Amino acid sequence: MNYKIVRFALGGIILIFGLLMLPSILVAIIYGEGWQGIYPFLIPMLFCVFSGFLLARRKPENTDFYMREGFVVVALAWLIISFIGALPFVLSGFIPSLAGAFFESSSGFTTTGSSVLSNPELLSNSQLFWRSFTHLIGGMGVLVFVLAVMPNIESENAFVMKAEVPGPIFGKLQSKVRNTARILYLMYFSMTAGLIVLLSLGGMPVFDSILHAFGAAGTGGFGIKENSVAFYDSYYLYYVLAFSMLIFAVNFGLFYALIKRKFKEVFKSEELRWFLGIIALAVAVLMINTRGLYNNFFQQLRDVFFTVTSIISTTGYTVTDFNTWPLFSHYVLLCLMFIGGMAGSTAGGIKVSRIVIYVKSAIAEIRSSINPNRRIALSFEGKTVSPQLKSQVSNYLSIYILVYVVLLLLVSLNAPTFEAAFSAVTATFNNVGPAFNVFGPAGNFGILSPLSKVVLSFGMIMGRLEIIPILILFSPKTWRRI
Amino acid sequence: MNYKIVRFALGGIILIFGLLMLPSILVAIIYGEGWQGIYPFLIPMLFCVFSGFLLARRKPENTDFYMREGFVVVALAWLIISFIGALPFVLSGFIPSLAGAFFESSSGFTTTGSSVLSNPELLSNSQLFWRSFTHLIGGMGVLVFVLAVMPNIESENAFVMKAEVPGPIFGKLQSKVRNTARILYLMYFSMTAGLIVLLSLGGMPVFDSILHAFGAAGTGGFGIKENSVAFYDSYYLYYVLAFSMLIFAVNFGLFYALIKRKFKEVFKSEELRWFLGIIALAVAVLMINTRGLYNNFFQQLRDVFFTVTSIISTTGYTVTDFNTWPLFSHYVLLCLMFIGGMAGSTAGGIKVSRIVIYVKSAIAEIRSSINPNRRIALSFEGKTVSPQLKSQVSNYLSIYILVYVVLLLLVSLNAPTFEAAFSAVTATFNNVGPAFNVFGPAGNFGILSPLSKVVLSFGMIMGRLEIIPILILFSPKTWRRI
Repeated sequence: MNYKIVRFALGGIILIFGLLMLPSILVAIIYGEGWQGIYPFLIPMLFCVFSGFLLARRKPENTDFYMREGFVVVALAWLIISFIGALPFVLSGFIPSLAGAFFESSSGFTTTGSSVLSNPELLSNSQLFWRSFTHLIGGMGVLVFVLAVMPNIESENAFVMKAEVPGPIFGKLQSKVRNTARILYLMYFSMTAGLIVLLSLGGMPVFDSILHAFGAAGTGGFGIKENSVAFYDSYYLYYVLAFSMLIFAVNFGLFYALIKRKFKEVFKSEELRWFLGIIALAVAVLMINTRGLYNNFFQQLRDVFFTVTSIISTTGYTVTDFNTWPLFSHYVLLCLMFIGGMAGSTAGGIKVSRIVIYVKSAIAEIRSSINPNRRIALSFEGKTVSPQLKSQVSNYLSIYILVYVVLLLLVSLNAPTFEAAFSAVTATFNNVGPAFNVFGPAGNFGILSPLSKVVLSFGMIMGRLEIIPILILFSPKTWRRI
Repeated sequence: MNYKIVRFALGGIILIFGLLMLPSILVAIIYGEGWQGIYPFLIPMLFCVFSGFLLARRKPENTDFYMREGFVVVALAWLIISFIGALPFVLSGFIPSLAGAFFESSSGFTTTGSSVLSNPELLSNSQLFWRSFTHLIGGMGVLVFVLAVMPNIESENAFVMKAEVPGPIFGKLQSKVRNTARILYLMYFSMTAGLIVLLSLGGMPVFDSILHAFGAAGTGGFGIKENSVAFYDSYYLYYVLAFSMLIFAVNFGLFYALIKRKFKEVFKSEELRWFLGIIALAVAVLMINTRGLYNNFFQQLRDVFFTVTSIISTTGYTVTDFNTWPLFSHYVLLCLMFIGGMAGSTAGGIKVSRIVIYVKSAIAEIRSSINPNRRIALSFEGKTVSPQLKSQVSNYLSIYILVYVVLLLLVSLNAPTFEAAFSAVTATFNNVGPAFNVFGPAGNFGILSPLSKVVLSFGMIMGRLEIIPILILFSPKTWRRI
């Protein structure tokens, strides 16, 4: 471990993170919240700028930055930022318990959207803004963000990208990492801006439009009304949000291909076809399963489509309390939570690309059982999957399950019911947001014990970083000086 | 597909299976049940002997017997036998519905032990005997049983063994398959006989001892009393059964090593150490979690130890209603259900050997993330795991999860609660027996819809045969004539 470079990188991140509290201060001023609204941001901001400056003041001579350092920086950055990001909630008094505020903040930065608040409408505007802004920051990863403004450490970027961009295959974005970051960044903010305009055009207040766009862009899903998006009750707004959630769960490499007019590449994307196929299938079976609950076909289609895109994109906005749907629907939605969005998007979950490889491996294994002498090569996106990638993807499943089981056992110590524990872990670890039972759309995570809140916060951060960077922190080998 | 050899093999199996109804007829005569007790066995027996004779009368000239044929024979044999084995329940009127009887019979032959009966004490002795006898037959696999008396088809045996003996690694039993079958067979029956003696010595009636020994040997677990083993309320009997369940979940290869006085091999067995380690850990955490429910430490230890060995060995005898234990205990027991016993035993579940490989793969992946240039070789039982075995074990997990999800979705269509559906699929697919909630030790599977009963029966058979042989039946390629 090159401790000095880690300290230097974290210092830079903390410094910039402090500055990201400025917009919330601005909101507090605009809405005339006075000192009461400003100081919950000003104090952490000054702390960040000061300590960040101290840490990053001197650039170390040894700039060796390998995988190990990259993972450690990413993991510590998410933990530190989630912690500091919780301070405004505590200082303002809106979430007095530190465990609760840490949960809310982790949920924001990991773009999960699970909340401990029973009614977010009680928050001040600056607090609401901060809460949704964490989704925007988290969306593309704090470090992809920092990447573009940290030009001094060239060598690390590739490793940071590997740890940060969700999913096993990043695609064909420009190879130069710095450029990649800028392009992702540009696409991300243009799409967010476009969404703000579309929502405002539909009659949603501008402030609400901005916050909902933040939540959709990061596939986060913090609602700003007690009943989330159901508050707006508009076909136009529902469909705009549903499609935008779907779009933000698509591999950003495909948007880049679109910009470059490589339409064939987009059309040929195997992962995209699976993603859309799963959505279509889920909508179809849920339409059948919930038919008894609706009189109006179009209303049903709207609610089901919104719910499916919201869950599979791991956003978590809600327009209906799907906890009241039949048991079969619960299980279908849980499957979507595990699947998640496409690799290289802001979505969480296991990712469609991995799911495709698991399904193909299963089929190949069955086929090779009939013909033991024939070796069947796996192909994905038109290319043969290398044994190394195949093994990496398989091992990820083992890691995923082991961590999932540990989280589940810990949460079960305090959860009220079997479904509550199972769905809470599923919804947080996959960065979805709302779960079932007491943690359903009509409930919230405030009733969890402090232990469970901290456990699930770790779970959200692990899920967001594809687990390994956080686990590495627990290995003594990581901390060995070279 | 060599259809003729499949027909011939199935004919032989059905013929022998018919003769296996004789002991039940004998029991009916001994207990003076008269014609009423005899004919439910006599009719299926005559049908089996007659049709089996017709099918196996002429030995085909082409005796080609490959993997494909082996899997098809195994899969069809289990399905046919489960169906015919259900007839005595229907004919006697004790389980009038065919779906229920098929469930009970599949549960018996797959050594699951899930029951649709609210009180087995209402059955006649001959029916009780048959029900537990299916565990004995199922225990080492109908075909390992048949193997020893079917000397004419030499070439198939290796494949049948592969499909039949549970677990990925069979161990170091004698290489000649015929001999292997005889040795397994001998060990199995001696151990069962020994257990009958031990139980009788503890004051259990001989009839009850025989039936409980059948259930323990096959790791089946059909209780013959309304409250299963709790009826006998004896420290001696509880511990004898607990240890015998544990022993029948141990790789039979280790017993063979014991007979051959290769004690070092047994002591060095990595899988055995993991198995015992998991049991010790589970007992410890469950003792802590259930401490509020007991006043007496020894009674608590007895109940917890019995429950742990019963569940991890996938037997399913119960001495206490663990459904009333805290939620954390439910999840711990569900983990044990998924893990199951050792490879090469009569136990079900994923098997300890596979679990070890998953855990080691996960750790290796994390370690190689810190040092990307170092390839870490997996070793198990002192040997390096070949990439082919590793990939096979990984793919099995994908297949397992996919089938599990399909079963869960189908069962959720009719299950009363989330936990009921989840635990019912877990307990049946892993061949355990009792589940939680309405399907807990105090409940039964009789309330399931006929659809769910059939789905779970298939699940039990799939779980017993390590899934692939049954899935192969659905592939058109399997049925292609050569």
